[in-house]
Amino acid sequence: MRPKILVVGAGFGGMAAVKALKHADADVLLVDRTNHHLFQPLLYQVATAALSPADIATASRVLLRRNRNASVLMADVTGVEPTAQVVKLADGRTLRYDYLVLATGAAYSFFGRDEWADHAKVLKSIDDALSIRDRLLFAFERAEQCDDPAEVTRLLTFVVVGGGPTGVELAGTIAELARTTLARDFRHIDPQSARIVLCEAGQHVLGAFPGDLPDYASGALRSLGVEVRLGEAVTLVDADGIVLGDERIDAAVVLWCAGTQARPAAIWLGAAAARNGAVKVTENCSVPGHANIFAIGDVASFDPGTAKPLPGLAPVAKQQGKYVGRLIADRIAGREKAVPFRYRDLGTMAVIGRSRAIADFGRFQLKGFLAWLGWSMVHLMLLVDFRSRLMVYVNWSWAWFTYGRGARLLTGRGDTGIARKERSRSENEKT
Amino acid sequence: MRPKILVVGAGFGGMAAVKALKHADADVLLVDRTNHHLFQPLLYQVATAALSPADIATASRVLLRRNRNASVLMADVTGVEPTAQVVKLADGRTLRYDYLVLATGAAYSFFGRDEWADHAKVLKSIDDALSIRDRLLFAFERAEQCDDPAEVTRLLTFVVVGGGPTGVELAGTIAELARTTLARDFRHIDPQSARIVLCEAGQHVLGAFPGDLPDYASGALRSLGVEVRLGEAVTLVDADGIVLGDERIDAAVVLWCAGTQARPAAIWLGAAAARNGAVKVTENCSVPGHANIFAIGDVASFDPGTAKPLPGLAPVAKQQGKYVGRLIADRIAGREKAVPFRYRDLGTMAVIGRSRAIADFGRFQLKGFLAWLGWSMVHLMLLVDFRSRLMVYVNWSWAWFTYGRGARLLTGRGDTGIARKERSRSENEKT
Repeated sequence: MRPKILVVGAGFGGMAAVKALKHADADVLLVDRTNHHLFQPLLYQVATAALSPADIATASRVLLRRNRNASVLMADVTGVEPTAQVVKLADGRTLRYDYLVLATGAAYSFFGRDEWADHAKVLKSIDDALSIRDRLLFAFERAEQCDDPAEVTRLLTFVVVGGGPTGVELAGTIAELARTTLARDFRHIDPQSARIVLCEAGQHVLGAFPGDLPDYASGALRSLGVEVRLGEAVTLVDADGIVLGDERIDAAVVLWCAGTQARPAAIWLGAAAARNGAVKVTENCSVPGHANIFAIGDVASFDPGTAKPLPGLAPVAKQQGKYVGRLIADRIAGREKAVPFRYRDLGTMAVIGRSRAIADFGRFQLKGFLAWLGWSMVHLMLLVDFRSRLMVYVNWSWAWFTYGRGARLLTGRGDTGIARKERSRSENEKT
Repeated sequence: MRPKILVVGAGFGGMAAVKALKHADADVLLVDRTNHHLFQPLLYQVATAALSPADIATASRVLLRRNRNASVLMADVTGVEPTAQVVKLADGRTLRYDYLVLATGAAYSFFGRDEWADHAKVLKSIDDALSIRDRLLFAFERAEQCDDPAEVTRLLTFVVVGGGPTGVELAGTIAELARTTLARDFRHIDPQSARIVLCEAGQHVLGAFPGDLPDYASGALRSLGVEVRLGEAVTLVDADGIVLGDERIDAAVVLWCAGTQARPAAIWLGAAAARNGAVKVTENCSVPGHANIFAIGDVASFDPGTAKPLPGLAPVAKQQGKYVGRLIADRIAGREKAVPFRYRDLGTMAVIGRSRAIADFGRFQLKGFLAWLGWSMVHLMLLVDFRSRLMVYVNWSWAWFTYGRGARLLTGRGDTGIARKERSRSENEKT
């Protein structure tokens, strides 16, 4: 019997593991809740109507078409039983494994205030992005119809909580959406009067970057029209907005990009976890006490021997996936070498609006347009398949020259009141 | 006071009317349930994962940016009060008008069997298309996981009811999806074994076309692997499939493209209606007894003085919209000419799969690849804005050469069981 390798999660980590197992003499099964691999670094562009979902997501089956030893299963994993060597699925079925790679990622955490999740939207999946897009566009539509000035102000106020890369990307892009794309399209409101507030409890946005890069980022955001609020914590989120420190800010849309929590793999395994719930893994990414179970990417906490565990970045997940895939292939072939995983830091980048970015390459830093050029080239190259690259290139060229947005669609599947109402009616009653 | 012109519906008819009113000394308000104008002739390509919604839909505000006398309102019209000259909205508000253009279109009808709507999907909106796409792709995913041969057969059976253009387009494209795009992507099932059944109660598919074109279409469909069933009526639709004549056909997906019913504008007005519910209009497209109310497109039944009322085609709606827009502009300017509407038939086309079509230009007919070339060029030219044209061109070129589908996404917002289940859970519990 060929060994069964089960990889849970079709993100950067899981996909890299399956690809690294291409020539292994084994049956590889990739399990994911969705049918696609998502290029998450550009998800904020779907949320802000610049790209379509299909531009940044590709069916996992297509990506693994040439991996003849790999199958794909669309299913929802709910637990692991290490002694029986099975994974449990939501529908009651189980899947046996000889090797298990957990690459289930992380979600946003509300610091114990789970009720905030009803009002603040997070950005992790395509559904999240479409739901945010609906909310953003619908806020302008409702403001256009509204006679109450206070309500118009609320509808045109957008709050982003969390000054990390996703928060900065969203705040900058929403500001551009309001100031340029939508500027001429309404008759009763002025989209340029929209207020975009970025709240960061720390002293800096993009605080993980060194030197003057965080200050540059704050300045760049402010020049785009974003109100950057530092050093104050959000103390309440409700249906009408937030409370920041002591100040009430009424807002139609609140986006939550603060703090992540690993998916519950550590709980499944009863394994030691870091503060964010990530499984503490050994130097070869295996789970302590389970030599045939590995955890990689955001669901893992890997101690590189320095002060901090590795950050939750796509390159970490990809490199760990590749490493673990090769390790398992070597073990099966009986040629395993005891080389610990080492993260190769190729630099980190964050983008602010349509023509500025910051980049940290360790030995040197970049900021401004040059960094943005670097950012766009790197992200185009990283896009998983040629088609996505081509489509994004066309979309971006178009958007760059025209300030237009191609995906300004309220599809009615999102969270807008009108959509919900409509869906419960029969076709014939519709206008 | 400038006169108020209210146009209800942002389809081909309504949009053409608003554009024709560009220079009218009036306030024009376009009301639609959605925020976008949809290029419906290509909607079947969204349903079959070849195009993204944004490729064929554009925000109405963007299309009317240069029409300075036009505003856009996203709202749901539920009735008209002709004596008060107001339109009623679902949220209780009313809108006053001096001139009213009803361009509310049509929906599919289930011949009085409304309970069939729970099981058979129609294709009218972007939401419909995404829901069909989810169902199609999910059927293959479920079949891949299924151990019961009878259930696999059911999951890989797709029924299209109605042999008009939409039914033919869907059946042909689903056949290609199964036979080419998906052919290599599964390990346990053979997508090429999928059964696609097109049911038409009449003796021909595309029966509105003359000569041997319908027979050619049947043959072309059969060569794509579609089972064309003529002359038998569907007598039942339920969760597991249909009954065709006396034969039970178990199917995972049933698409309903038979018979349309006009939206209830005639009921709103208490006006005389044709059999399909469309308002019988006068020779200038006005509603009898209401000189300032016009009905155009699928919601109107226009008698051209020949045997049959004008068909429910995009060119009819567009030409009527343009005619009515000009008529109202002329009346406001005091230069109305009593010229009745005349439909200029530029020919009709229908496409069968990726390289064949039929076309009827009255004096001559085309079929096969040449007709398909004509069809693609005409549809590219008709696409409303440059961006859509460019994106569709890129997508099509890609799909044509690779047989690939760029939009093979199960976004979880559709009708798949797994998606529904997931949505009710908190983020942290997800895999």
